[in-house]
Order: sequence, then structure tokens, then C-alpha cells
Amino acid sequence: MNPESEETEKKGGSQSRSGEDESNGPSVERIFEGQGVPSWRRQLTFRAFAVSFALSVMLAFMKLNLTTGINPSLNVSAGLLGFFFVKTWTKVLEKFGLLRVPFTRQENTVIQTCVVASSGITFSGGFGSYLFAMSERVANQSTDPQSAYVYKNPSLPWMIGYLFVVSFLGLFAVVPLRKIMIIDFKLMYPSGTATAHLINSFHTPEGAKLAKKQVKALGKFFSFSFLWGFFQWFYRAEDDCGFARFPTLGLKALQYRFYFDFSATHVGVGMICPYITNISVLLGGILSWGLMWPLIETRKGQWYPADVSNTSMRGLQGYKVFIAIAMILGDGIYNFFKALGRTLSGLYHQLRDGEMSHVLPIANGSSPDNHQVSYDDQRRTQLFLKDQIPTWFAVVGYVTIATISIATLPYMFPQLKRYHILVIYLFASTLGFCNAYGCGLTDWSLASAYGKLAIFVIGAWANASHGGILANLAACGVITNLVSTASDLTQDFKTGYLTLASPRSVFVSQVIGTAMGCVISPCVFWLFYKAFKDLELPGKEYVVPYGIVYRSMAELGVEGFTSLPKHCLTLCCGFLVAAMIINGFRDLVGKKWARFIPLPMAMAIPFYIGPSFAIDMCVGSLILFIWEKTDKAKADTFGPAVASGLICGDGLWTLPSSILTLAGVNPPICMKFLSRATNKRLDAFLGS
Amino acid sequence: MNPESEETEKKGGSQSRSGEDESNGPSVERIFEGQGVPSWRRQLTFRAFAVSFALSVMLAFMKLNLTTGINPSLNVSAGLLGFFFVKTWTKVLEKFGLLRVPFTRQENTVIQTCVVASSGITFSGGFGSYLFAMSERVANQSTDPQSAYVYKNPSLPWMIGYLFVVSFLGLFAVVPLRKIMIIDFKLMYPSGTATAHLINSFHTPEGAKLAKKQVKALGKFFSFSFLWGFFQWFYRAEDDCGFARFPTLGLKALQYRFYFDFSATHVGVGMICPYITNISVLLGGILSWGLMWPLIETRKGQWYPADVSNTSMRGLQGYKVFIAIAMILGDGIYNFFKALGRTLSGLYHQLRDGEMSHVLPIANGSSPDNHQVSYDDQRRTQLFLKDQIPTWFAVVGYVTIATISIATLPYMFPQLKRYHILVIYLFASTLGFCNAYGCGLTDWSLASAYGKLAIFVIGAWANASHGGILANLAACGVITNLVSTASDLTQDFKTGYLTLASPRSVFVSQVIGTAMGCVISPCVFWLFYKAFKDLELPGKEYVVPYGIVYRSMAELGVEGFTSLPKHCLTLCCGFLVAAMIINGFRDLVGKKWARFIPLPMAMAIPFYIGPSFAIDMCVGSLILFIWEKTDKAKADTFGPAVASGLICGDGLWTLPSSILTLAGVNPPICMKFLSRATNKRLDAFLGS
Repeated sequence: MNPESEETEKKGGSQSRSGEDESNGPSVERIFEGQGVPSWRRQLTFRAFAVSFALSVMLAFMKLNLTTGINPSLNVSAGLLGFFFVKTWTKVLEKFGLLRVPFTRQENTVIQTCVVASSGITFSGGFGSYLFAMSERVANQSTDPQSAYVYKNPSLPWMIGYLFVVSFLGLFAVVPLRKIMIIDFKLMYPSGTATAHLINSFHTPEGAKLAKKQVKALGKFFSFSFLWGFFQWFYRAEDDCGFARFPTLGLKALQYRFYFDFSATHVGVGMICPYITNISVLLGGILSWGLMWPLIETRKGQWYPADVSNTSMRGLQGYKVFIAIAMILGDGIYNFFKALGRTLSGLYHQLRDGEMSHVLPIANGSSPDNHQVSYDDQRRTQLFLKDQIPTWFAVVGYVTIATISIATLPYMFPQLKRYHILVIYLFASTLGFCNAYGCGLTDWSLASAYGKLAIFVIGAWANASHGGILANLAACGVITNLVSTASDLTQDFKTGYLTLASPRSVFVSQVIGTAMGCVISPCVFWLFYKAFKDLELPGKEYVVPYGIVYRSMAELGVEGFTSLPKHCLTLCCGFLVAAMIINGFRDLVGKKWARFIPLPMAMAIPFYIGPSFAIDMCVGSLILFIWEKTDKAKADTFGPAVASGLICGDGLWTLPSSILTLAGVNPPICMKFLSRATNKRLDAFLGS
Repeated sequence: MNPESEETEKKGGSQSRSGEDESNGPSVERIFEGQGVPSWRRQLTFRAFAVSFALSVMLAFMKLNLTTGINPSLNVSAGLLGFFFVKTWTKVLEKFGLLRVPFTRQENTVIQTCVVASSGITFSGGFGSYLFAMSERVANQSTDPQSAYVYKNPSLPWMIGYLFVVSFLGLFAVVPLRKIMIIDFKLMYPSGTATAHLINSFHTPEGAKLAKKQVKALGKFFSFSFLWGFFQWFYRAEDDCGFARFPTLGLKALQYRFYFDFSATHVGVGMICPYITNISVLLGGILSWGLMWPLIETRKGQWYPADVSNTSMRGLQGYKVFIAIAMILGDGIYNFFKALGRTLSGLYHQLRDGEMSHVLPIANGSSPDNHQVSYDDQRRTQLFLKDQIPTWFAVVGYVTIATISIATLPYMFPQLKRYHILVIYLFASTLGFCNAYGCGLTDWSLASAYGKLAIFVIGAWANASHGGILANLAACGVITNLVSTASDLTQDFKTGYLTLASPRSVFVSQVIGTAMGCVISPCVFWLFYKAFKDLELPGKEYVVPYGIVYRSMAELGVEGFTSLPKHCLTLCCGFLVAAMIINGFRDLVGKKWARFIPLPMAMAIPFYIGPSFAIDMCVGSLILFIWEKTDKAKADTFGPAVASGLICGDGLWTLPSSILTLAGVNPPICMKFLSRATNKRLDAFLGS
């Protein structure tokens, strides 16, 4: 089908069904009340980073199996494996009476953060996409003879250097916004919430009866989801086989990606996201894949050339990517300035009152929510705000790294000018915010979409003939890294929030993890690159399907926005403005009515991905809705645990599944769906 | 795959998880205590038979859609539709103050019995198999030029006459054995149990709280199972597509029918059957399809010709059918004589004591079970034994009808001699008992397998050259009708037992229903036969796939047992004796150890059908087992309701599914399972 969707990374992190809903359920933090929370320095133990390093190397091998272009989300595996390694280690030490520091959930969060940060680089480093697209191997496959001599082969020194100068900016970009996103906006980060539940459940003290029941429910659905993933695996011999391509709503609907794909993860995500988010993604899916794309398709040959491939930005794919980005940008910019305004006004009030109220600003009235704050929220907010990361530190960090980056990048890519990078960095924090915000709402990180945007913006601006190809790809890397790490970090902040890990320790862990990733990922990639000389050659075992796709985009990007299909820019502007208007409307009508107005950010995501995950999420919503109708108390208590179990079990399955792929073990069976007519033809063919 | 399995009719009836297990659950009959039970004459109302007639006509149209050879079990539909028709009718009457006789569950059972009896004739009448195989249309397709002139075209008068003389014998054959099978052996008849639950639940008096909960559970799983059947339908464009061919255990296992086919019916049946039955069928499946058939296959070309088709009795299919029958016969004969012995000894004791104890012989000690008898069982047994059908009546009936049959049949089929028929009838009651007994254990009626046996026995004996083909087919009809009606009636007796319907009213209803069927079925078939002149011609819309199969068997049967593949008879004798020995062993070791020894009857059924249903049943067992381990009380209370819901929902789906097939609406999608290699070939083919 359309391979682009699989390239978009699915992010996970670790948080819980936040405030609003959880106030009804039982208190998690009361269970943990007896346990002290170690200071942020004590959360950063040596053993945590040792385990993280080992896991990072392992997962890098997993994720860099470049055969499919799919980048599995391994957060859950990270959390789980981290727990088991350290738990075993501490158990052994305890037996010999050598254990000095007990294993806490904060430490677990630190490991998880570090591993996720490190293995995140395997995706955002672009070894399967933009970075590999620069190489000679891909250039030789290009159809454009003029560009064949424009290449930059991978080599360890420049790859590591490049990653170091571009990977840290995203961290500093979102640090000042953490309170707004986690506490004020109460963003969800569903797969993150799931991991946090997992971590909390591992560390639940003995004797908590209700908690035990929750852990049991989580465990049950965890096993179910894992086994379900395992079962599904057998029937997916090819990409277009198996449950992930089940035409639940018919074959015609499947073409436009309207189908329920039996993904336990997405159903779980739907159970964690608020109803309005799920409805929004479904609406967005219907609007785009049900209405707009089919309509635009009828203009084939007029609006866009009829002979382009499905993945070409000159064709329908161009509309999908750019309209989605426009809408996300509109929403993001609106919320960015809203957040900025709120921050400034809060700052102004605080300065006028002459007092910095660090503790519980929500209870102090600086939050617009007046409803009762639960004990869990109070305690979490208190600890989240205790260890501040000063804004000046973030600003200084951002500026310093940006300066280094501006100074060094042009040496690697002479076509990339200093002012290009400067301008990118001026706007990049907004993009980082957009991505972190969108990921918090719907669990999807659209880092690769932002990367594509960069290819075209820089392409349009630099206008540097064929040499510009490398500049475009390098700019793509800068943006991809920035927005990807931004959403990763915010997710981990939420994890920290829910497991009472200090923002400082999360931040430090993320920095260390990123540094690890900047070294580990290129090294592992180097191994693959050297070992498989026929990487990217079609028909071989290890192919990098997106290498040539990115190369083509960069070649197209040289021509800038003019290369986009007809009316695409107009539509983009329309949707950008529409997103802002809808958001303004939501704020104007007040909370009572706002919950019936869809979220533009959530609507935009299926524009690009396709609506199948929206259907999964709505199924999750429906399950929760029916459950709440029949037994509200039970649904509130066990809903998050069940959802987390579903997400985490499926998440853990990606680990053995990656190992199998890496070992060359392919699923034996293809479950195929054919129309009656095609089936008749095939039976005749097989019979003959 | 192997089409033979689909031809075997799945029987349903209507009874409940009997005695032993139900004694733990809550009492159904206490709930109904306030309602009186009408006398058996009052259970037979005119409106019941009017509704039955209408339903019979409708269902005959359904079942005689001869396209697939599958004869769906419509018992559940019969029970349900009967309820809704009469309920609506009585509600209307009640509104106008005209209702004199309230609608009771006994009346409901009468309707269900009558409709099942009537529509049973559509199967046992052989319109898709032996009867149609006699026609000129099929004869013309035969590969044997010498037999092409041997045919007897269907015509209304002889078909109706033939059915009347052969269809009633089975009823009289099992009447004297009803107490032994229902009360002494406590046979299960799972799909029957399900229907009885349904009928009981419809008529549950207001205010019974637990009963209401059970009804709710039944309703929930009923809807689920119905919708699941509906969902599955879409993906079954051809016979080898869809969930019913899901290689859950791999493609290799699928070839030998080891797979879970997602059939809600069989899972429900597994939940109702005792564990030992489920284990037995699985063991039988492993022994036959896992061991014996693959081994015999390696002798292809030596033991049997390599060039015969899959369905030929000269090949592997011969082993399957005859070994299964031999084992069933062994078990059946053993149990028949055991029952006979018990009856005679009981009779002797009663005569010696000079007193006929009609009421509650179990409580009087004539039953070997000494454990506490539940209230439900007491009450049901009491009512079941109240209205006796005298044995002399059964004997006179059997002899009379057999005489008429012997007198008239040779006029229709001159090749069938009087002494053939006489001998058939002498042994037929044993076969009827075997089938009723096996159906009670596992829910499968093997009427068509017994029919095939008749083809060969008469073929071997009569030795009547090519004219013998018709004699063989006619004998097949005699046996099929007899054993099929025998198991139907016993099932309905159990329904009656569980709904407190009198055995007399059940018997009368069955007789009337059979008479209806003998007229309705040939008429409806006649319509199809005249309307579709190309019936049976391959590639046309209405084909009768088994017509030619039966014809071939009959042609083979003319040669008698010598035509069977090598060592087949030896193996049959071995298994017949083995079945008797195992049974003897079960009786010798006592109850404590007997429950670990498999039942030969249950083991034999997958020999012929294939083990997929055994796997379904074991899944049902497993579900119940886990449920009982986690919450014994709940499992006992709701288990039968859930199982009944599963069976009935799937059962009801056959009704709309048949309508769709009849209307020529075919499922749009084929869910196909291909190996990696085949899939690659197909993709290349589709791409080109």
C-alpha cells in the first residue's frame, strides 16, 4: 500500500491518564506514599546508565535492521528490560547483603528515558532515509543523470559529528515549555502513559490490594496483546498481508485506508485519549481520505501529472504531506503563541506580586481549571515543579549549540549556508513545540513530515541547482532531529511527572542518552553498511526502501515549491488558517461547548497517515464508553490498566519480531484478501 | 478441501447441561414452579402446528438451496421463529381479550420438534445426495458407459411415497430406548441443550433475578456469536476462503485439518460436553489425521490406486469412512447390548418384585448413580416418566411400518429384494441407536456415513450388476432416513425432558412434522428441479455437488467390499473390536478411573470429519476450565448460558446466510492463506 505511513515513527514514552479523569479513580500516589522520592542526583545512578548503554546497543541493532523502513517503537521494551536487568542485579546484591541503594521507579524512568533517547537517534539520524540518501549507492540509482555525481558517502567521523551538532537542540527547545504541556495543557501522550503505568505497577509496594488487582488486569491484557501480536506475525509474509491489511469495511474502503487493523496498540491509545481526540482523528480521516483525496484523484492529469508514482511529492502524496503539515502548523503556531502569551502574563503577574510561586501554581489559581485537584495531581505537580530547570539555562544552551551548529555544519555541507541554518533554528523551536504538542494529543510523532517540509523550504529558498540536493537532505536531518527529540523529551517529562522522577534527572538522562545514541547508532550503521555491500540494491536481503524516496524528494526540492502539484499551496494556506480559526473558536465558546469542537491538530494527522488508526482509536473509545455506561467505577479503576496492557504487550512484541526479522526468519503465511473475481483468476492460475 | 465433511449434517435439538453438572448451579425448575405443566394433549395446539407448517415450508426452501451440499442446522432458528410467531399471535389475542390458552414452553418445544422433524427430511430425503444420484441428469455424467442407462428420474408421486414408507421407522426404533439415553446415560446433545436453554429463557417468569442475569449472558453471547457469523460471511467468497479455513496451526497442519476454525458453535459445544468427550475427539483426531492417514498416504499406489480422486471410496476416503463406521459400530453394539441387558435385568427385577415403579426409578435405586439428585433432575425425570409410550406400541408400530415398507419398496425399486429390506430392518434399530447415542455424546450425526455403509453392504450382498446401482442408492436412503430420524427424535426427547414437555407430545409432534416433511420437501425440490434445468451441470448456479459422488459410490458398491482399498476391512475389524474392548475396560475399572479412558464413539467421529472441530471443542473446554479455576460458582451458573448463546447465535445466522445464498448474493471477499512462495508467484501474476 502506501509505504510512507510506515515510516512515520510511532512514539511512546511513559505517562498516566492525567488529572481530569484520574481524579475519579483510586490514588496511585497514596500507595507509594510510604516510599520516599530520592533527590534528582540520586535518581541518576551509575548502574542505570550502564544498563542503558547495554540496552541501547542491543536496540540499535534491532532498529537498524533496515529491511522494511518500519521503525518500531521500543519504549516499552526499554522500560521492561531496564526493570528486569536492574531488578535482577539488585536482587543478587541484596542476597549478598551488598545492596546500598534500592531500585526505585524514578531510576527505572531514568533508564527508560536514556534508552529511548539513544535508540531514537537510530530513527532521527536518518540511516534509513535522508542520511543514506546522500550516499553514492543511492545516487547511482537516481533517474536524473545530472545529479548522479552529487553524493556524500557515509563515514564514521562526519556522521558522529553531524549528529552531535544537530541532536541536542530539540532538548533545549522544549525544556521551558514542559510545565505548559504537562501541567497546564494536561496532554496525554498515550503510549507514554502506558509505560508509566507499567513502571508504577512494577514498583507497587506489597499489600496494596486494589493496585494488585490493577497490576493483574494490566498483566492479563499485556499477555493477551503480546500473544495477539505474535499470532498476527505468522500471517504477514509480505507488507500487504495479514491482519494489518484486514478489509474490515470492505475492499473499496481498504483502498482509502478505512479499516480496522486489529492493532492492540491503537485500541489502547484510543482508550487513553479523550473522546474528542478520537472523534477528531476520525473526522479528519473522513474529511481527507473519504472526501478530499478521492476528489483530488478525479483531477488526475489536470492538477497533477498522471504518470508519477504513488510516493512522489509531485502527485497525490504532495497534497497529503503538505496539507497535513499546514494544518498542524496552524494549530501549533496558534497554541505556541497562546502558551507564550500565558507564560508572559503569568510572569508579569508573578513579578508584580513580587513572589515566585513555585509550588502548586494550579492550586494558586494560575491555571484556568477550577475543579478539584486530586491528590495524585497535587503530589505529582509539586514534585514536577520542585526541581526547576532555569529558563536562562535553556536559552543559553539553545544559543550555544545553535552557534556551534551554524559554525560547523557548512564545513560538512558547503551548499548549506550559515544564514539558512540560522533561520531554521529561529523557527525550529515552534516546529518542535508543534510536534511535541501533536504527539501529546494523539501519540503520533510526525518528525519525518517536518523533515520533508524542510527539504522543500530550503530547496525553494537556496535554489542551488543540483548541488542543493545535499543541502536539502542535511536541512531535513536538522529539522527531523530537532522535532523528534523535542517530542521524545516532552514524553519523558510526562513519564517523569507520573513516576515522580525529577525533570532534572529526566533531562540529564535524555542528554546522556542522546550522546550515547550519537555514537552507537552510526557505529552500528557502519557495520551494516560495510557488511552488506548490496544495501539498497533491490531484491537483496537488506534493502533501504526510503533511501531512493528521499533522494527523489531532494531532487524535486531543488526546484522548490513550484514543483508541488497545482493548488497545493492554496489548499495549504486554507487549512493553516482554518486550523487557527477553529482553535480560536474553541477558546471563544468556553469549555462547555469547546468539547464538541474537533481539534485541528488531531484532525490533521490522518491526512497523512490514513484513517485506519483513527478507526482503531474509536473502537478503543467505544469499548471504554460502553464499559463506563455499564460500570463506571470499574472502568475508571481498570480502564487505564487495560489500555496500558494492550499498548505495552504489543510494544514488547516488536522486540522478538525485530530479532526474527534480523535473523532472517520470515512469517510463513500470507493472509491475503481478494475480491471474488480476482480469487477466481488466481484459482485458475494456481490450478494450471 | 475434502467436501465430504460438509455433507455430514450437524444436528441440534434442545436440552440443558444435564444432571451431574447442573446440580451445582441454581435450579431452573424452581423458577418455573409456579407455572403448571399442561397435559400432553394440551401441549399439542392447533396454532403450534399451523406455525410449524409455515416455518417448515420456509426452511425447506432454505435448506434445499442445493448449491453447496452444506445442510445448515436450523433448529435454533426453528425454536426462535416459533417463539416469535406464537408470541406475537398470543400478544395480539391477549390485547383483544381473546386469548384462552397461554403460550407455554412445552408448546414451544412442540413447534421446535415439529419444524426440526419436517426440515430434517430435506437432508435425509437425499435430494442433494442419493435420491438425486438416481436421476438421468447425473447418470449422463457418469464415466461408466454401461451404467448410463440405469436411472430413475424424480417425480412427485414416488418420492412422496418412498419418503412415507422409510421415514417413520426411526421414530419407533428409538422410542423404547428414550429413558436409557436421556435419564440413565445422561447424554448431552449439546446444540440441543443450547436450544432448550433458549426456550427456557424465553419463558422465564418475571422477577427471577438470577435467571434474568443468565438470560442476559445468553443474549450477549447470542448477539456476539450472530454478529461473528455475519462478519465471517464477508470473507468466504469460496469454500476454501475465510475463517473456516484459517491455518491457525500452520499450513501443513491445515492440510490434515488441524486448525482452529473460529466456529462459535463448536466452541459452545465444547463448553457443554464433558472434558472426557472433548479429549476423546482430540485424541481420535490425532490418531487418525495426525498418524494413520498420513501413514496410509505413504502407501499410495500400493494399498490403493494413486490415480483416484480425493472423494473416491477406492482411495483414502474409503479408509476414513469405513474405519470410522467400524469404530462407531463397535461402540454402538457394545452399548446397545449393555442397554438391552440393563433393560432386561430391570424388567426382571420389577416383575419379580411384582410392581411396576413408573415414577422416579432413579430415586428407587434402579439407577446406578447413588449421588444426590438435584431438584431439577427429580422434577424433569418425574414428568418425563409420567406419560409413558408403551413398548408394545413401539414394537407394533415398527413391525407395521416395516411390513408396509417391505411390501411396497420393491415396486419402486425392483432390484431391491424383499429379504434385503427385511434384513436391513432387523439391524437398523441398532444403527439408529448408535447414531442417537453418538449424537448425544458429541453433537454430530453421522447419518450419511451409515448411508454409505448401506451402499456397500447391499452392493456386496445383492451383487446385482449395473442395475444394482439403484438398489444401493435406495438402501442408502432407507438407512439414512432411519438413523437420522432416530437421532432427531432422541434429541427432541431431551429437549422435552428439559422443558418438561411430555414424551408423548414430542413423539406426536415428531410424527406430524415428519409427515409434513415427506410432502413439503419433495414439492420444494420439484420446484427447484423444474426451475433449474441445469441443476448439477458444473459451472452453473445451482449445482448438486454430491449427486455425482453418490452415483460413483453406488457404482463402486455394485462390486461390493472387494472394491474397498487394501487392508481396509482388516483395519475395520481391528477398530470394531478395539472399540468394544475399550468400552469393556471403561466399565470394568469403575467410575473413578473410567473418566480417564477415552470414549471410542467420540474418538471415531474425527476419523471421518477431520479434527478441526475437535480443536474448537477443546478450546471451549479450556475456556470453561480456566473459568472454573478462577470462579467456580460463576462458571457453573453462567457457563451453560454462554455456551448456549454461542451455539444459538451462530445457528440463527445460518438463516440469513441461506437467504443470501438463495438470493444469489455471494460474499465479496476471499480471505486466502498462502505460503510465502505461493504468494510471491501470485503477486508476480497479479502484477503482470
